[in-house]
Order: sequence, then C-alpha cells, then structure tokens
Amino acid sequence: VVCKQLRARGPGSALRPLRSPEGHSGTQSSHRLLAYSDALISIIATVMILPVAHTKVQDDEELRESVQALLATKIAVYLMTFLIVTVAWAAHIRLFQVVVRIDDCLALLNLACMMLITFLPYTFSLMATFPDNILGILLFCGCVMVIGVIQSLMVLYAFSRPFLLNEQIQISENQTFYKHHILKVIMRVPLMCFLASIASLIVFQLSYALLAIVIFLPYISQFLKWCRSKAMGKCQVEESPDSMLYYTYLPNEPLSKDRVEAFSDGVYAIVATLLILDICEDNIPDPAVVETQFGGRLIPALLVYGPEYLAYFGSFATVGLLWFVHHSLFLHVTKATRLMGLLNTFSLAFVGGLPLAYQLTHEFPRNSQNELEAIQISCVIIFFAGIFQLAIWVVALYSEQETLHPYVRYGGREHVFMLAKLALYPCVALGTFFLTCILSKFSASIFHLMEITVPFAFLVLRLLVRVGLALLRLIFCPDRPDPRTVVEEEEDETRVPFNTLVTELS
Amino acid sequence: VVCKQLRARGPGSALRPLRSPEGHSGTQSSHRLLAYSDALISIIATVMILPVAHTKVQDDEELRESVQALLATKIAVYLMTFLIVTVAWAAHIRLFQVVVRIDDCLALLNLACMMLITFLPYTFSLMATFPDNILGILLFCGCVMVIGVIQSLMVLYAFSRPFLLNEQIQISENQTFYKHHILKVIMRVPLMCFLASIASLIVFQLSYALLAIVIFLPYISQFLKWCRSKAMGKCQVEESPDSMLYYTYLPNEPLSKDRVEAFSDGVYAIVATLLILDICEDNIPDPAVVETQFGGRLIPALLVYGPEYLAYFGSFATVGLLWFVHHSLFLHVTKATRLMGLLNTFSLAFVGGLPLAYQLTHEFPRNSQNELEAIQISCVIIFFAGIFQLAIWVVALYSEQETLHPYVRYGGREHVFMLAKLALYPCVALGTFFLTCILSKFSASIFHLMEITVPFAFLVLRLLVRVGLALLRLIFCPDRPDPRTVVEEEEDETRVPFNTLVTELS
Repeated sequence: VVCKQLRARGPGSALRPLRSPEGHSGTQSSHRLLAYSDALISIIATVMILPVAHTKVQDDEELRESVQALLATKIAVYLMTFLIVTVAWAAHIRLFQVVVRIDDCLALLNLACMMLITFLPYTFSLMATFPDNILGILLFCGCVMVIGVIQSLMVLYAFSRPFLLNEQIQISENQTFYKHHILKVIMRVPLMCFLASIASLIVFQLSYALLAIVIFLPYISQFLKWCRSKAMGKCQVEESPDSMLYYTYLPNEPLSKDRVEAFSDGVYAIVATLLILDICEDNIPDPAVVETQFGGRLIPALLVYGPEYLAYFGSFATVGLLWFVHHSLFLHVTKATRLMGLLNTFSLAFVGGLPLAYQLTHEFPRNSQNELEAIQISCVIIFFAGIFQLAIWVVALYSEQETLHPYVRYGGREHVFMLAKLALYPCVALGTFFLTCILSKFSASIFHLMEITVPFAFLVLRLLVRVGLALLRLIFCPDRPDPRTVVEEEEDETRVPFNTLVTELS
Repeated sequence: VVCKQLRARGPGSALRPLRSPEGHSGTQSSHRLLAYSDALISIIATVMILPVAHTKVQDDEELRESVQALLATKIAVYLMTFLIVTVAWAAHIRLFQVVVRIDDCLALLNLACMMLITFLPYTFSLMATFPDNILGILLFCGCVMVIGVIQSLMVLYAFSRPFLLNEQIQISENQTFYKHHILKVIMRVPLMCFLASIASLIVFQLSYALLAIVIFLPYISQFLKWCRSKAMGKCQVEESPDSMLYYTYLPNEPLSKDRVEAFSDGVYAIVATLLILDICEDNIPDPAVVETQFGGRLIPALLVYGPEYLAYFGSFATVGLLWFVHHSLFLHVTKATRLMGLLNTFSLAFVGGLPLAYQLTHEFPRNSQNELEAIQISCVIIFFAGIFQLAIWVVALYSEQETLHPYVRYGGREHVFMLAKLALYPCVALGTFFLTCILSKFSASIFHLMEITVPFAFLVLRLLVRVGLALLRLIFCPDRPDPRTVVEEEEDETRVPFNTLVTELS
C-alpha cells in the first residue's frame, strides 16, 4: 500500500494519462521544471562558500584566530543560506507533490519564485555585515512574504484547473478541504514573517527568534509528537486521517527520491567545479614574472604551484568519491523520508565546505602549525560529510522493509559491502586526523596520500570485505560451514531479479 | 522503426530487465551517473565566463578597445572551453549509448574521466596566456590522450561483460566488429593528439591546426557527405549498413534528448546563479564607509547600487525566460539529432555570455557612450541566444514527421504559438538594439523596460497570437470561415491524446 501511495505522489505519475487530457494540450509534465529548480536551488545553497574560501588568511596570525573571525560572518552566512534554502526547497517539493502537471502560467510563476529564492543569500549577507540594522531582516521577510503569496497563487490556480493536480486529490471528494489545509500551511510562514517584520521595528532581536521559530517549529513539534506516539505505541499514528496525507511534517513523510538525488547531484557538481575556477584564476603565472624570475622558462614557474595541483586532484577525488558513495546508497534506497532528507542536507552542507578545506590546505608553508590545523579541519569536514551519509543508512535500516532494497537489508548479500562503502571515508578521515596528531611533521604528505589512495581502496573494497568476513568467521566460529556456501544460501533467499524490483519500486 | 531504434538507444532501455540479471547484482542503471556527468560538464563549460566578467574595464578608455583586449585572451578561452567541453560531452553521450548499464568499476573510471575534463580549462588558460609556449598544448594533448585511454578501457571492460551493453549489441552476432569499430573511433583522437604533441616540438603552430582538424574533421566530412547524398537523392543514405548505427557522426544521428535537456538545464542554472554571487560579493557596502559617508544610514548606501539590482533582476528574468522557451520547445521535440544538438550548443554559448552582459550594463555611468555600447552588446548576445533556439525549431521542422509532436508541426494547432514564443526574444532584442541606436539618450531605461516587460509578454502571448491571426485572416481573406471554426477543425485532425503520445515517444 505504501508503495502504491508513493508512486501516486512521485513524478512518475506526471506521465500517466489523466482522464480527459485532450482538452488541455497546454498542460505539461512537470519533470523538467523540477529538475531545473533543483539545479538552481542546489547551486544557490552551495555557492555562498566561495566568499568564505576566497577570504585571504594572513600568514602571520594563527589560523585558529582567523577561522574564528571567519566564523563570525561568512561561515554563518553560508550555513544560514544552506539551511534556509534547503527549507525553501522542501516547501517546493511539498507543493509539487500536490501539483503534478504544469502549464505555461505555473512555469512562469515558478520562475518568479526561483528569482526570489536566489535573492535570499544577499539578505543574509546584509544581516551578517550589519547585524544591528533591521534592513536585512526586513528584506528577508519581504522576500519570504512574496514567495508565500506566489505559492498561494500557484495553489489557487492549480485547484481552479483540477487536471493539474495529483490524482488522489483529483478523485477526492473534499477537494476544498485540501485546498484550505494547504493554503493554511503555506500562508502560515508569510504571516509569521509579517509579524516578525513588525516586531523588528520594535525590538529587532525578537524578530530573529521569531523567524527561527517559524521555520523550525513544524519540524520540531511534529518530531516531538512522533517520538511521543512511538513511545506510547503505534495506535496513535494509525489514527491520522486521510486529510494529513500532504503537508504533515512527519519525519517519515515520503520525500521524492528523484528530487533528493537531483539536488545532491547539483551540490556535488558545483563543489567539484568551483575548485578548477580557483585554479584557472589564481594559478596562471604572470608572463612578466615568468620572464624576470624564471628566465622565460614556464615549467619551473608552474612547479611553484605544485601543491595546488595536488590539492586540486585530491579534492576532486574526494568530492567524486563522496558522490559515488551517495549514488551507491540511493541506488538501494526505495523510498526517501523527511528525516533522511534532513540528514542528507547536513551531509551536503559539509560537502559544500570542501572548497574551504582545499583553500586552507595549500595556503600555508609546509610543516607549519597552520598547515597541520588546516589539514585537521579538512579531515573533520570529510568525516562529518561521511558520517551523515552513514546516518542516512542507519535511519533507512530502522524501517528497512519500506525504505531499502532486499539486497542491502540486514542479512542481505550486499549489506556488509554497503556498510564498508559508507564507513570507508569516516574511518579514513578519523585515522588521518589522529595520524597527523602523532606524526605532525608529515601531515601534508599523509593527507595527500590518503586522498589519492582512497579511490584504489574503493576498487578493491569488495575483495577486502570478502577477506575480512572470512577472517572474522575463521576467528569467531571456525566450526560453521564454509562462508562461500553461506553466501550462496543468502543469494537463494533474495533471488528476486534486481532490475524488475528497481523498475517496480523506484 | 526509427522510433523503435531510438528507444533502444535511449536511457529508458537501461531500466528494462535484461535476460539474465540475477547473477549480476552489482550492475546499476546508468541514469544518475549520466545526470551527474551532465551537471559537471555543463558547469565546466560555462564557468570560464567568470574570469571574463570579472575583468575590470577601465572607465577612461573606450569600451570597444577593452572588449578587443578581452577578446584576445579571456573570451577566446571561454569559447574554446565551451566548444571543446561540448565535444567531449558528445563523445561521452556516444559512449553511454553503447554502454547502458554500469557497475562500480565503470562509475569510478567515469569519475576519473570527469576529473580530466574539468582540468581542460586550465590548459586553455595556459595556452591563451603563453601562446608562444608549447607547454599548454602538451598538457592538453596529455589530458586528451589519458581520457581516450580511459574511455577505451571502459569499452573493453563493458565488452568483456556484455550484460552492460546496449541490447542491440548484446544480441548482435558481430560484437567483435562493433568493439573494433568503436575502439578505432575512440582511439583516433588520442593518436592524433600524440602526433600533434610531436609536431608541437618541431613547429608548434602546426599542432594547433592539427588539433582543430582532429576535433572537427569527422563532423565536417560527414556533414559534406550527408549534403552530397541529400543532393544526389536518398538512395545513398539507405546504403549505410547496420554497422554504422553508432559513432557515425551523421548530422541526423539521434542524440539522447534527456541528456541534451540535462546539459542545457545545467548551463541555464549556473548562468542564473553566477549573477547573485557577484551581487553578494561586490554590493555589500563596507560598514566603515556607511558610517563615514552616509552617517550610518544603510538605505542611502544601498541605493547607490540601484542599477545593479535592476540589472540582476533583469538578467535573471532573461535567463529564466530563455530557459522557458527552451523548455517549451523540447517539450514538443520527440527526437533530438546531432545537428539540433550543435545549434543548441551555439545557443547555450551565447546564454553563457549573459553574465558578461550583466557586468557591462551596470559598469558605466549613465548616458555615456560606453553604456550605449554595453547595452547593444547585451542585445546582440540575447539575439543570438534566441535565434539559435529558433534555428533548432527550423531544423526540427525540416524532418517534422520524425522529430516533432503533431501539435507543433506545420498546420498543427500550437504551430503559430510556438513560433511566436521562439521569435519573441530575437524580435525584442533586435527592436531594442535599433531603438537604442535612435534614442541613444534613454538606452538604459529602454533596456531595463524591455527586460521587465518580456515576462508579461509571455503571459499574454497566447492572446496576442489569437488576435494577430484573426487580424491577418480579416485582412487577407475576409471571405473564409470564422477562424474559431478553423481552429476546431485543426483540433479534430490531431485529436490524439497528448499524454499518451508523450509517454510513447519520449
């Protein structure tokens, strides 16, 4: 049943022929509009790391101090942008789980919405630079209010043309009830923003608190409710009526898996390519300098930038492999939930910090205290990016019957391999961190060694897992049958063809 | 038959269950890998406009001179990057039309390939900065050779595991022939690069010519062949054997429509968001300046940046609407060909130039000669971006039975409306260009008026087209029946349900 509901909500349903489509040739599948919106939002969420990474850290002062100075404004802007833009993205997903087909008018309204979302980072920059001035918060509230009004317009427009709506709402008898429920949820945010902007005219510290509440209250309250109901038994969850199908804010509310993937792809892609931009802008030597200092020979002039190239290839490999792990994980996820989406957001926020790590690791002279700390910061960023990916899997395992493919469930034949894939980066980052603490002199070489050997570790990972499992079995229970037989038995249990399953469930 | 072939090649076939998939649980649908590659390549292709846009044009010299100075290096780097990266993208599409399923090893090899593609812009920067030094061209040749070797490895790997291949090749009897043909085509480029790098050691001007030939020769020769065969009649085209199904370089060779859309979405998204980055980095006033010059009042300090905000919203609207036109066009395209892909690339190259237009239009004092020229350059960029979109449609109309949805074919009920959508931007840009020539004093206001009114023009476009058609009919043939009846007759002709058609064909 869950699977059926999920499919009815997913973008796949947009392609299914509706009952009387001949009269409405202007309607279109929303698939590409959503892909474009995901690309825009993911870039906007990530791109604010550039001002952070471009802040030149002075060499004479200690790194820790300058990082603290950065933390005060630019990192705060980056994290705020990432968080708020992701919340806006979640609202966008909710809206387009109800409106599954579009026409020209909805497409144009959506573009207007996107324009305002891309303007949000500017309001955060204003807030961070002038924390005592209310203009930033007023601008932010204004943007959010206009976005809310546009989204309400889209809902009203879609309900006035029911063939644009989700099939379940189309056939539902209480369409008006749905409309009012959705409008109420959407308009709550602009209304609170209006209150916040009035409050900011009186006591502007109050408005920050009000804004934080308005954005996170539904999540927190629903999460608490959900925890309580879990603690008190299942009965209360079952009680929730059909009306709560959309806009529930429950942590197990389904999230379009396609859109989570598209958003993540955008973040990984922009992070990987921001690096080459820095290389192209900063690491082309000045022809005059080459002439005077290196006697016109280009190769020695380029060798000065050696650490930059190494850092570039290392960082690209890290981003690429984190994407690879994410890709492997979501290949086996059959249904994404809100909670998994939240953990994914945290993971991506750390991935977005990698350009900063890249900038720091090659900025300082070799074997200085600063370099050591820069490498440790990089390890911490990579560690958290990896550990949140692992957390997604743990949450998925918690309700594995609904969310995971049989192969990777507990006892499935790919279970241990997937665990190894997900655990590789956190373990390596942690190991590197402690190694750099002990062997402080070789820290840079250790770090680059780590970045370059990890791809090969992935190539031989399947072999390593086999060997490790065999060893474990040999040590702890040497009397049990040969592991090869066990593996084959497991295969028999889950002998459903992989392809058909993926086609059915995704 | 064409449709059947197309579907067999498209990514849709990747989801179809193959014959004996149970044994290979490691294989995966390539869909997300391709989406990620498209995102990476589109960002890499576009991001080199940033160094162009960030070049500060001195106010005292004439714009034309500084643009000429820019043309010499940075615009050349941008265009070269865009062109070469698009060629690499086309090669990537060819490869993954043959290899339709992936496993971990192929995914990692593909990431290595991507890493080298992202490094190509750096080699162009080197070439442009040191045109007399052979190091840039050697590095470029080295990258291309390694990419070629990796792609050959991927082909060999895929042919050693035939369940990864396209179904048509899987069931084909002469698999070995296919393998050799594909390897020959792939290895041709690295071999020529090897020759070019040897030539560069002797006469390095020769190597540039050699590289240009190696990259464009297959396209040009096949295009000439195709033109000749068209001129001499259809018979020769039919002669081409089954072996030429892939890697033919014919202009009507099908191109995966999904990937063209994904690539275009990436370019439009990155162009739209690069703008806000500039706003956030440059247009936050310095707190000290606000304190001293504006007496601590923020609003007057921000009003200084007024033209920037207007330019930002105008540029975002332009990019968004060009995407909207592209989206509307490809919604009705049922099959994309190489030639359409090429025209799309040209259109996107001009779209990528929009950040430059944005930078220029607000850089200069009002009513100066420079401002006028900046606005005219913007009009030219927008005009060409739009005219190449129109060209895609014209090419599609040329073989409309295969490539277009019945609704937009000549005589279909959406035909005129689509033409109006595609012609709107070129017409408006052209009109603005000539208006600025006549009313040189009001050029900036005219330009921003244009950028802001175009969205509304799109909203009422359907109405305008109806009125225009009615007027035309009234003027030229007042005796014919009421246009409303004609429209309804047309509707009857093409009464196939839109949704089912889209589902079948796409």
